[in-house]
Amino acid sequence: MEQKAGGEKQVQDKEFVKEITPKEVDYSQWYIDVILKTKMMDYAPIKGFMAIRPSGYAIWEKIQELLDRRFKETGHQNAYFPLFIPQSLLQKEAEHVEGFAPEVAWVTKGGSEVLAEPLLVRPTSEAIICDFYSRWVQSWRDLPILINQWCNVVRWEKSTKPFLRTSEFLWQEGHTCHRTEEEAEEETLKMLEVYREFLETEMAIPAVAGRKSEREKFAGALRTYSVEALMSDGRALQAGTSHNLGQHFARVFDITFLDQDDQLKYVWQTSWGLSTRVIGALIMVHGDDRGLVLPPRMAPIQVVIVPILTKKDKDRVLKEVQELAGELKTDLRIKLDDREEYSPGWKFNDWEMRGIPVRIEVGPRDLDKGQVVLVRRDTGEKEFVSREALPARLPQLLEQIQNDMLERALQFREENTRSCSDYMEFKKIIEEDRGFIVSSWCGNAACEEKVKNDTKATIRCLPFDLKPGSDKCIACGEKASEAAFFARAY
Amino acid sequence: MEQKAGGEKQVQDKEFVKEITPKEVDYSQWYIDVILKTKMMDYAPIKGFMAIRPSGYAIWEKIQELLDRRFKETGHQNAYFPLFIPQSLLQKEAEHVEGFAPEVAWVTKGGSEVLAEPLLVRPTSEAIICDFYSRWVQSWRDLPILINQWCNVVRWEKSTKPFLRTSEFLWQEGHTCHRTEEEAEEETLKMLEVYREFLETEMAIPAVAGRKSEREKFAGALRTYSVEALMSDGRALQAGTSHNLGQHFARVFDITFLDQDDQLKYVWQTSWGLSTRVIGALIMVHGDDRGLVLPPRMAPIQVVIVPILTKKDKDRVLKEVQELAGELKTDLRIKLDDREEYSPGWKFNDWEMRGIPVRIEVGPRDLDKGQVVLVRRDTGEKEFVSREALPARLPQLLEQIQNDMLERALQFREENTRSCSDYMEFKKIIEEDRGFIVSSWCGNAACEEKVKNDTKATIRCLPFDLKPGSDKCIACGEKASEAAFFARAY
Repeated sequence: MEQKAGGEKQVQDKEFVKEITPKEVDYSQWYIDVILKTKMMDYAPIKGFMAIRPSGYAIWEKIQELLDRRFKETGHQNAYFPLFIPQSLLQKEAEHVEGFAPEVAWVTKGGSEVLAEPLLVRPTSEAIICDFYSRWVQSWRDLPILINQWCNVVRWEKSTKPFLRTSEFLWQEGHTCHRTEEEAEEETLKMLEVYREFLETEMAIPAVAGRKSEREKFAGALRTYSVEALMSDGRALQAGTSHNLGQHFARVFDITFLDQDDQLKYVWQTSWGLSTRVIGALIMVHGDDRGLVLPPRMAPIQVVIVPILTKKDKDRVLKEVQELAGELKTDLRIKLDDREEYSPGWKFNDWEMRGIPVRIEVGPRDLDKGQVVLVRRDTGEKEFVSREALPARLPQLLEQIQNDMLERALQFREENTRSCSDYMEFKKIIEEDRGFIVSSWCGNAACEEKVKNDTKATIRCLPFDLKPGSDKCIACGEKASEAAFFARAY
Repeated sequence: MEQKAGGEKQVQDKEFVKEITPKEVDYSQWYIDVILKTKMMDYAPIKGFMAIRPSGYAIWEKIQELLDRRFKETGHQNAYFPLFIPQSLLQKEAEHVEGFAPEVAWVTKGGSEVLAEPLLVRPTSEAIICDFYSRWVQSWRDLPILINQWCNVVRWEKSTKPFLRTSEFLWQEGHTCHRTEEEAEEETLKMLEVYREFLETEMAIPAVAGRKSEREKFAGALRTYSVEALMSDGRALQAGTSHNLGQHFARVFDITFLDQDDQLKYVWQTSWGLSTRVIGALIMVHGDDRGLVLPPRMAPIQVVIVPILTKKDKDRVLKEVQELAGELKTDLRIKLDDREEYSPGWKFNDWEMRGIPVRIEVGPRDLDKGQVVLVRRDTGEKEFVSREALPARLPQLLEQIQNDMLERALQFREENTRSCSDYMEFKKIIEEDRGFIVSSWCGNAACEEKVKNDTKATIRCLPFDLKPGSDKCIACGEKASEAAFFARAY
């Protein structure tokens, strides 16, 4: 730090490689350090609000690209609905208003005019979209309606954390209408599987899919499903939800259609969403004490080329790396870092902190030998590759890294998923090891509440096709009907 | 219309091909009809707000894709800034607050808490972004900052029109910081040219680029530039703006950097934006009495295949069009309309209304002859093409349509751009022909105001390198210094 004459601002020395608090010392601080030091996010002058900086937003753009492709492949179209919802519309569905009203931002004045009816900034868009759907749906020919929206939403939060919980966040929300109950359930589960498969394939995050308990379901839904991932500190994170709304909203918003049998019927609806909070999951599942570790498919930059420039050989090394970058960039996302105001060592640290999957180093000696050095971000392994073999080796290596990252995350989850049928042991696991605990449950909300009060663990989901391991509820000892994944969650 | 027992809702007969008011009868109604009947937009239950339906949003997605590619090629990155701006931040720049405060939506309550300081919903983001930039910029090494944001903004409007003026709209806003005045001016003009070239190349909309007069410039800018297009009713539309902000915002938000010469300096800034209103321009430049006409590069569907299905030959025709669609879709955006609940004639009308550039018809007789029928949306021309020649012919035809559409728009603009040095004649042209009028101007705001009051025409822009045709100002007759494009505008 130095104080400059002629200005009050302190200028930081950018040559300084910043330190990140180790996970073991303070996991929460590690998370914040990674985000601030890689410039993914920054705090706004309004409590609870943040800006997503280019290095964070580039990951959101990748998520959008890869998810949007899947939405379109499953027949969905994008649209855009108003940011504001009249208070009276929110109030139509009783559970929905109860769930969302406490965390809403209210617009009460437009221009110089005080509004007759307050408008709320959307916390989710069921109410406003259902109002449109009541006019758009007339006949069975109009169904299904398969619409998705990418947008911002606002939920007034008391305590916030970058990406995981902020008063404004970005997400997508799908809203569909169907002729039959079966079709709606099929859609709900199809989109849940889209999320699960996307997280696994692209983000290298294994997620458990299942149904939410009544207590945890979406306000106004018939049934909610979710995909749940395990962070490296043993806490769970809900990465996406898919709701079968049944006919709750159709009835209060009067969304009806004339069916082929000439009967007027209510539609069956679904909604499903995934938000910028999965960027938090990406950081916590893969990150290490040196910073971010990005899976190659999510990385805005997959390979960074750092030339080792000496006075004598600068020109020929620069020429080589420029050719290399030009050659590789048709198939890969390549960054050539030829800045001269930073040293190679500084750049190595900086790109490692930013999680770029592979670094290529090229110096005069490599040039003489006709080789380059490859360094994996995830393992730190070094590899010498001949110049000719490089174009074939790189995609292979990236694929390997992607697979290894998923494999390690899977292994971590398996090691941290414990079956338990004894409540004393349950409490001990939650306190000492965390992770997922698979236990039997009687289905009673009182038991769920008791577990939460005793241990801060909640039922994350009731996975499909998982039978209770014990015939006794973990909390009350009465007859168990379901197998639940419990965990402390973000 | 029929009233169904068991429900209060009226069900419209979808087989009915809807009529569009001819342009000549009522241009404004024609515009609304096209939008509502092609389902591009619909009115929200809040005055001035609208939903962008899938067929409208698909065009916005194309605009985003094609513009975003250009932003990235010119070195920009995307980010996301908060929706809300504290009142005190807006008030920092005097001209800026004066320009925007009257049309702002105010959030006064969050959850159950009444806010100590009201927040405004962003009408544009200079104020909140400059607050971040004051912390992000420290050294000359941090410059330039080249950031863009895709988002929604709210401006409380009294009178609204789909796409052209709505209280909420979608746009992109670029916000950059530079070391020198020259660099900022270069960026401002570079992005103006990106807009002009994008409109011409992709949207087939010729636009005049130039500087705005003081009266029309952005609140807080040093200089504003714009691209101005001519609609088919002879009114102009501002399609994009690019502002050189000078150091106005840097000074009030204290955005300084330590330069290489060890001096603390204010940055030089730009901002530039283009919104969903250009969809309105697309409709008005190219549309006709049968509805939308989309340039092939903007069309979400470029080619629609409509099979002529008869009982006897249904299977073999379906097989043929399915093969055809499969074959063509690798290179083109193809839609096969094989719905059986609509007749071919109904489909022809419907896809024409939606502006799909090329229709392919295939019936049993075409099959026998080994041919298909191509119909151009823009001219209605029919063409018989052999099945073998089709894959080569289609891209060629689409290219031709794109060029012809630009050519026609250019010709229309040329025919409707009139030089004028006599004020009586000026008034007559504006009343009878509209279009652009090129006249000399003394540079005095009073003359600009007089022209506006007399004729409702404003100075759209002062094109680059255009010398005054007369040495006398069109309004006052005093010495002219500039050549201006006047028009009535949207």
